[in-house]
Amino acid sequence: MIPIGERINGSFADVRAAILAKDKRHVQDLALMQQKAGAAYLDCHVGAAVVDEAGAMRWLVEAVQEATDTPLSIDSRKLEVIKAGLQAVRNPNGSVINSCTGDEAQLDIYIPLALENNASLVARTLTRDGVPRNADERVSIAATIVTKAMEYGLPAERLFVDPVLMPVNLYGVQEQPRYALSALHQIRALAHPDIHMICGLSNISQGTRERPLMNRTFLAMAVEAGLDAAIVDVLDAELMDAWITAEVLMNRQVYSDSYLRAVRLAGSGARSGPENDEPESAT
Amino acid sequence: MIPIGERINGSFADVRAAILAKDKRHVQDLALMQQKAGAAYLDCHVGAAVVDEAGAMRWLVEAVQEATDTPLSIDSRKLEVIKAGLQAVRNPNGSVINSCTGDEAQLDIYIPLALENNASLVARTLTRDGVPRNADERVSIAATIVTKAMEYGLPAERLFVDPVLMPVNLYGVQEQPRYALSALHQIRALAHPDIHMICGLSNISQGTRERPLMNRTFLAMAVEAGLDAAIVDVLDAELMDAWITAEVLMNRQVYSDSYLRAVRLAGSGARSGPENDEPESAT
Repeated sequence: MIPIGERINGSFADVRAAILAKDKRHVQDLALMQQKAGAAYLDCHVGAAVVDEAGAMRWLVEAVQEATDTPLSIDSRKLEVIKAGLQAVRNPNGSVINSCTGDEAQLDIYIPLALENNASLVARTLTRDGVPRNADERVSIAATIVTKAMEYGLPAERLFVDPVLMPVNLYGVQEQPRYALSALHQIRALAHPDIHMICGLSNISQGTRERPLMNRTFLAMAVEAGLDAAIVDVLDAELMDAWITAEVLMNRQVYSDSYLRAVRLAGSGARSGPENDEPESAT
Repeated sequence: MIPIGERINGSFADVRAAILAKDKRHVQDLALMQQKAGAAYLDCHVGAAVVDEAGAMRWLVEAVQEATDTPLSIDSRKLEVIKAGLQAVRNPNGSVINSCTGDEAQLDIYIPLALENNASLVARTLTRDGVPRNADERVSIAATIVTKAMEYGLPAERLFVDPVLMPVNLYGVQEQPRYALSALHQIRALAHPDIHMICGLSNISQGTRERPLMNRTFLAMAVEAGLDAAIVDVLDAELMDAWITAEVLMNRQVYSDSYLRAVRLAGSGARSGPENDEPESAT
């Protein structure tokens, strides 16, 4: 399981304020909290409302790296912002580029960029035609993505395919979550087993009233369908408990009576230390 | 979704004591609590330690029916106990016989019994050879069950196929939950869409330390795989919330901001009335 911490994102008012005020401390605190909660990567997104997005991304990446070595997910829809983030990355391996679409012209830019930077790449099953209308369109775009990645020689384990989640409450498209699950199953069955499948989990519950419940329920279902990575609120302990439990039930993590603690301790950015006193850690 | 309340079972010490003391009030209270919590059926099982199981089943069925019209699931591994329960049923339609195996000789007895009693039938993908070792064996036994039911003319919507859950913590068989999920997918894809798929959910977590978490996480995964019925602790509100949410995410229930309340109100034995003051019911 590959949890990517979603919290350092300028769409959150506190992060936006920190970026505008160049308040390193605040984003560093968020970085450390997410690392401790088990984030394998820390997503960095400057938000849409910042004027100099590339400069802000550079500052954000530098600030986070002063606090932690946890690898970063450089998150933007704009190529120049991604590039600015990658240039500021000190750790030469292991960043994630988040993200490109499944348009061939974009893949021809982003896959070489990932190769040059020893980075992984998130590719969403979207094209300039918009959001896929069903499972088949997702699978078809995923096939383009996987084929392109193979042609360029991107190792399978550095490709993250995102089947694109839509909010469950969009009028007339309540079938979309099911399409994403079906696409996960099909892509998992068709593609190289080392390929990762990822989603931006919080999208599923956008605008709904039961967000944490909906997020963790969908995550368990998506794990069953083949998901192994997700951009999530790693600080939501109930969500992480559900994810770890789903992994145990899929036999991807070993069961023990204290599996919630054991899996966290085994994770790269696992919670540990004497200050870790969740009830489930008692043995 | 078809929740079957598991609580009236002589394996629980309080129910066993009530059966031995012929304390109707206690089992009637359990019946009403489960009805209010959304049970579509009430499972009735006298437990293994009672001497006259058939007599105890007759008493149990009569006691429960004095309190509620919610249909019953007559639960025993012994044919004479099932028959005693069915004879005591007043409501001529809608009981569930729980359960028979996938052995042809058993099916030749239980399917006609279901037809004679206007009952539904739970058939487990087990044979006298024991628990199926993988998904394929489950699917193969399910095929026997479905074929037999069709031959006898049991309507598809009166057949419940149970892929048999094994506890996740049994040494060396941590793969079993995944096999059950895989079998659910395959049976759902192959069999008539009106066939129900059911499990005894609590089996998955037997002997583990995180039972409610494991139960509700597996249930969400199983719904994704095609499950539409389950014998569960309907009094576990978090479990029922997860189930309803999974159904909404599969587009089997309509989303609304207050879907947790709306789905419960629409259910046959739904919670309702002024005493229903769960937080999610606020509008």
